Amino acid sequence: MSNYPLPLERLIGYFSRFPGVGKRSAERMALSALSWTSEELSDFGDVLSSLREAVKACAVCGNICEGDLCPVCLDCGRNRELVCVVEHASQIIQFERSGSYHGLYHVLGGKLSPLSGKGPDDLRLAELRDRLESGGIRELILATSPDVEGEATAHFLAREFSSYSVKITRIASGVPIGSDLSYADSATLAIALEGRRGLEQ
Amino acid sequence: MSNYPLPLERLIGYFSRFPGVGKRSAERMALSALSWTSEELSDFGDVLSSLREAVKACAVCGNICEGDLCPVCLDCGRNRELVCVVEHASQIIQFERSGSYHGLYHVLGGKLSPLSGKGPDDLRLAELRDRLESGGIRELILATSPDVEGEATAHFLAREFSSYSVKITRIASGVPIGSDLSYADSATLAIALEGRRGLEQ
Repeated sequence: MSNYPLPLERLIGYFSRFPGVGKRSAERMALSALSWTSEELSDFGDVLSSLREAVKACAVCGNICEGDLCPVCLDCGRNRELVCVVEHASQIIQFERSGSYHGLYHVLGGKLSPLSGKGPDDLRLAELRDRLESGGIRELILATSPDVEGEATAHFLAREFSSYSVKITRIASGVPIGSDLSYADSATLAIALEGRRGLEQ
Repeated sequence: MSNYPLPLERLIGYFSRFPGVGKRSAERMALSALSWTSEELSDFGDVLSSLREAVKACAVCGNICEGDLCPVCLDCGRNRELVCVVEHASQIIQFERSGSYHGLYHVLGGKLSPLSGKGPDDLRLAELRDRLESGGIRELILATSPDVEGEATAHFLAREFSSYSVKITRIASGVPIGSDLSYADSATLAIALEGRRGLEQ
């Protein structure tokens, strides 16, 4: 008996497909699920089974939502002249939690990555073009990750949409708030120096 | 929109109940589940929902199994005179993977832990007594954890079953194979010295 019973092995297989979950963690998770009640397991199972039907992508921005449009797109209080372009819907919640952004979003669905075969056709560019053409947008904030592929994607987007009369901006890069400069890498320090601002005196 | 859609929040809640899974990891897991196909999610859900019916405890030893008896108890090739007493069914697979044990097992279902209100009545002692009384067992190997509670449980079991004509042994404690002695703690070194063996010369 060097294997678990089949249902448990299958559960371990599923758990180990999640990011950051190795074989041993998946085993621990599956074994701990054995101590849950039938009701809890069945409810957990139902939430998973119906996930794709219950959670959809917003028809306008691509954010995750329960209906056709996401709460951000439905909110009349948002500034509809601003669109923040992000890679993944999951990043929107971080911007929302910062409490400092009150415009709309657009989910690209990734970034340009030639190595993993991800090109412009794999991003939600047509949808963004439609939004720009329908008018009313004054600024496009490019909030792709500050890594090589994210920067390349931002530059590509800036060129791609340069013909529209819209201001295109990029979120600031620099040293993260609350960090210790002793541990900052040189590339971040270089960009932080380059982007330095005058202090009110 | 500072929260995820409700089905996703519920999924995050369930994932974060697993050992070693924090709020952020649970979020990552739930979000990555969004990229699974409906079939995969529905199959994953089914495995969870039917887990309690599909995986049971062996009627004899308490090991996890699909039928009434576990593969170890059903295996005619095992040495039925040896019973290794473990805390949890999940630990059996580690012994099995070591490939060096060919006897039977008995799952206690935990260890004595006055602080968390776990006493002798919460352990599967009656079942072990039945097995000892039905005869044929020559040795009881106490394989509870080498921590305070596990040692106390082993001593309790040794006293509890001292009236039976059965040899009661305890697994060896010492420095783990493959470890670097520089990182061994002093308690482990003390027990490793105490349990030293003569080398063949």
